[in-house]
Amino acid sequence: MSIITLTTDFGQKDHFVGVMKGVILGINPAATLVDLVHDLPPQGLTQAAFILMSAFSFFPKGTVHLAVVDPGVGTKRHMVVIEAGNHYFVGPDNGLFSYVLDKVPLFEARYIENPSLALPQISRTFHGRDYMAPAAAHLSLGFAFDEVGPLANDLTRLKTLRPEIKPNLIRGEVIYIDRFGNLITNIPNEECEGWEVIISAGPLTLHGLARSYSEVGPGKHLAVTGSSGFLEIARSMDSAENPPDLTLGTPVQIKKSKQ
Amino acid sequence: MSIITLTTDFGQKDHFVGVMKGVILGINPAATLVDLVHDLPPQGLTQAAFILMSAFSFFPKGTVHLAVVDPGVGTKRHMVVIEAGNHYFVGPDNGLFSYVLDKVPLFEARYIENPSLALPQISRTFHGRDYMAPAAAHLSLGFAFDEVGPLANDLTRLKTLRPEIKPNLIRGEVIYIDRFGNLITNIPNEECEGWEVIISAGPLTLHGLARSYSEVGPGKHLAVTGSSGFLEIARSMDSAENPPDLTLGTPVQIKKSKQ
Amino acid sequence: MSIITLTTDFGQKDHFVGVMKGVILGINPAATLVDLVHDLPPQGLTQAAFILMSAFSFFPKGTVHLAVVDPGVGTKRHMVVIEAGNHYFVGPDNGLFSYVLDKVPLFEARYIENPSLALPQISRTFHGRDYMAPAAAHLSLGFAFDEVGPLANDLTRLKTLRPEIKPNLIRGEVIYIDRFGNLITNIPNEECEGWEVIISAGPLTLHGLARSYSEVGPGKHLAVTGSSGFLEIARSMDSAENPPDLTLGTPVQIKKSKQ
Repeated sequence: MSIITLTTDFGQKDHFVGVMKGVILGINPAATLVDLVHDLPPQGLTQAAFILMSAFSFFPKGTVHLAVVDPGVGTKRHMVVIEAGNHYFVGPDNGLFSYVLDKVPLFEARYIENPSLALPQISRTFHGRDYMAPAAAHLSLGFAFDEVGPLANDLTRLKTLRPEIKPNLIRGEVIYIDRFGNLITNIPNEECEGWEVIISAGPLTLHGLARSYSEVGPGKHLAVTGSSGFLEIARSMDSAENPPDLTLGTPVQIKKSKQ
Repeated sequence: MSIITLTTDFGQKDHFVGVMKGVILGINPAATLVDLVHDLPPQGLTQAAFILMSAFSFFPKGTVHLAVVDPGVGTKRHMVVIEAGNHYFVGPDNGLFSYVLDKVPLFEARYIENPSLALPQISRTFHGRDYMAPAAAHLSLGFAFDEVGPLANDLTRLKTLRPEIKPNLIRGEVIYIDRFGNLITNIPNEECEGWEVIISAGPLTLHGLARSYSEVGPGKHLAVTGSSGFLEIARSMDSAENPPDLTLGTPVQIKKSKQ
Repeated sequence: MSIITLTTDFGQKDHFVGVMKGVILGINPAATLVDLVHDLPPQGLTQAAFILMSAFSFFPKGTVHLAVVDPGVGTKRHMVVIEAGNHYFVGPDNGLFSYVLDKVPLFEARYIENPSLALPQISRTFHGRDYMAPAAAHLSLGFAFDEVGPLANDLTRLKTLRPEIKPNLIRGEVIYIDRFGNLITNIPNEECEGWEVIISAGPLTLHGLARSYSEVGPGKHLAVTGSSGFLEIARSMDSAENPPDLTLGTPVQIKKSKQ
C-alpha cells in the first residue's frame, strides 16, 4: 500500500494536476492517488495549511502528502520533505506544513537536494511536476529519508493558529470558511466542551453549544463543536457568512463558566 | 475488486471528500474509489437521488455507493445500508436512494447501528466521515450485511418520479438539468420510441424526436431519447434552459399517435 | 499496470464522468483512472487538443488517453483509436488529437468499428459511455490494435499550432490561458532560449526572458519559458489576462538577436 494525497492551488481547468499524477505513476505505478483540494485560491497558503492539518491524520500511517502552493517557484526558496507522526509531507518550504507541525511538534525535515529524485528536464515554473511529484513517488516506494538531502533546521513557519486562552476567557478568530458557509475558528473544541459558554463574534452573541445544525430555526446562527477539532459558527439551512458580517479574521470571544 | 463510489454535496473547495477517502483506505487499502458528483447544490437531495439512479447500474455488481447529502446530521435521523440489484448503498435515511428503489423494488435495508462499523471518535457534524465512510469500507471488504443493524422497514422516500401516463397522453416534467443545459424529463424513452409524438414544454412545441443534437439548426430546440433513459429537451449548440423559460419543474406533455 | 486518462467537457456537476469510469472498471477492474480535465468549455476542442498534447508524454508508455469532446455525437462522424509514441488515444474523429500528432508524426489510426468493443445498448447522445470508454478499457487489457476497425487514413485535423518562424522574427499568438491567467503562446521555448529577445503582445513590450514569476515587481508583466514547452506571458502575483487586453488569439511577436 502506498497512498499519496495531492493538495494544490492549480484548480481544475488545466492539466497540471493530471500531469503530476502521470509523473508519480511513472515512478510508482501502484500508488493510490487521492485529491485533497485543488480549488484553493491562488497562493492560498493559510487555507492549504489548515486543510493539511485537518485532513492528514485521517489517512493511514505512511501516507505521503504532496502539497504544491508555490508562488516562489523558480526563486531560491527550498523544497522540503518532512516526516511527522509517521506521515510524510512534500512541498515548498513556505509554511504550508506549519499547522501540521504545530500539532506534531516532533518531526524531521530535509531539503530536497538529491538529484536522483528530480525529472531529467527541469522547467522554470513547474517544480511540482519536476521535483516534488517525483520526490513523493520515490518516498512512497521507500526511498531512504536521510538520502533526500541535508537536514532542514530552520523551516519557514506561519504565525501559529493558537488563540489567546485565559482561565475564563478565550480570544480567537475565524480561520476558515467551508463551502456551506460554516465559520471555523481557531478555538479547540476541548476548551468549550463541558463549560457554560457565551460566544461573541462580530455583532452576534450565542449562548451555549448546539448539538446539531438544525437545533435552531432556519436562518438562526449557532455554535457547535466542529468536525475539524475547532469551534464552528454556523447558520441553520443557510450560510453563516451572510450578514451579520462574519468573515475570515472576525474576532471570536468566549466567556466560560462552570456548568 | 472492490469499488466504492462517492456522491456528496461537499463541493471541492474543502477537504471533506478527501478525508472520507482517507478513512476508507485506512480500512480497505485496496478499494477503488470513484467520484460520482460532489458539486451538488447544498442539500440537493433530489438531484443526488437522480444521479444515483442514473449511474449505479453502469458499475459492476458488488459496487458500494456511498452518498452523503445529510442536512439532518446530528439529529435523530437514521443512517442506512441498502442492498438492491447486487449493489450496496450507504447513506442517511432521507430519501437519497428513492429513485434507485423505484427502479429496483426488491431490496433489503438495514440501519447502521453496529458500533464496530464506526470510527472510535464521533463528531456532531460529520457522520459521513465517522459512520458512513467506515460502513462503506467494511462492506467492500465483505462485512456481513445482516450484522450492520436491524432491518429498516420504513425507509424515507421521495415522491416518485413517475409521470402520468394515459394511452395517448403523457404528463411529466423537467426533473434535472445537466451542465450542457439539456433538460431531462421524467418521461421514459420507451413511452415515446416508435410513436408519432408532439411534445409541449412551456411555450415550446416540438414535432417528433431528433436522432442527434445537431439534427436541427444551431439555436433550435429538439427532443431526443436521452442517455439516462428519459426524454430530453435540448438546444442545438446552446443551452435549452435559455429562454423560452424552461427550467426544473416545467410541465412537459406528450401527445402520442401511431406512426 | 494499465493507466487510462480521461479528458472531457462534461464538467463536474453531473454523473457522466463517473458513469464512464463504471463502464471501464466493469471491463478492466484493475485500471488506474486519472482525470486530466473535465472543466473544458462545452465543445472546447482546441483547449482539449492543447491539454492532451501538453500532458500525454508525462504518463508512462502504454497509457490510454480517452478524450470525449463530441459535439457531433449521433451524426456520421467516426470514432478513432490512435497509437502514437507508444501511447493510445481514443475519441471522436474531430481533431482532438491534432496537436499530439503534430508532435508525433509517426502514428497509426483506426476507426472504432468492431462491435465487440461497444456496450450492448447504445444511446443516441452518449457515445463516450457506449463506445469510447469500453474501447479504452479493452485496449488497456491488450485488445489487438488491428482488430479495432479499418485504418483511418484521413483523420480530421485542426489548423496547426506552428507559428511563423523567420531567422530573426517569430509571429505567433496566445493559444491557451491557464487558471492563474498565464498566457501560453504557440512559440516553442527553444526558439527563444539563448537569444536576446524583444516580445510584443498587444500594447505590451517586454525585453528579455525572466527566470521566475517573481523576478519583476507585483503587477508587472514578464515573459518566461513555460512548463508546457512554449513561451508564456505572465504577470507577477496577478493575472496576465487583466488589462492591457491580452487574450486568446492575441498576436505575439518576437524579435531575436544574438546575445
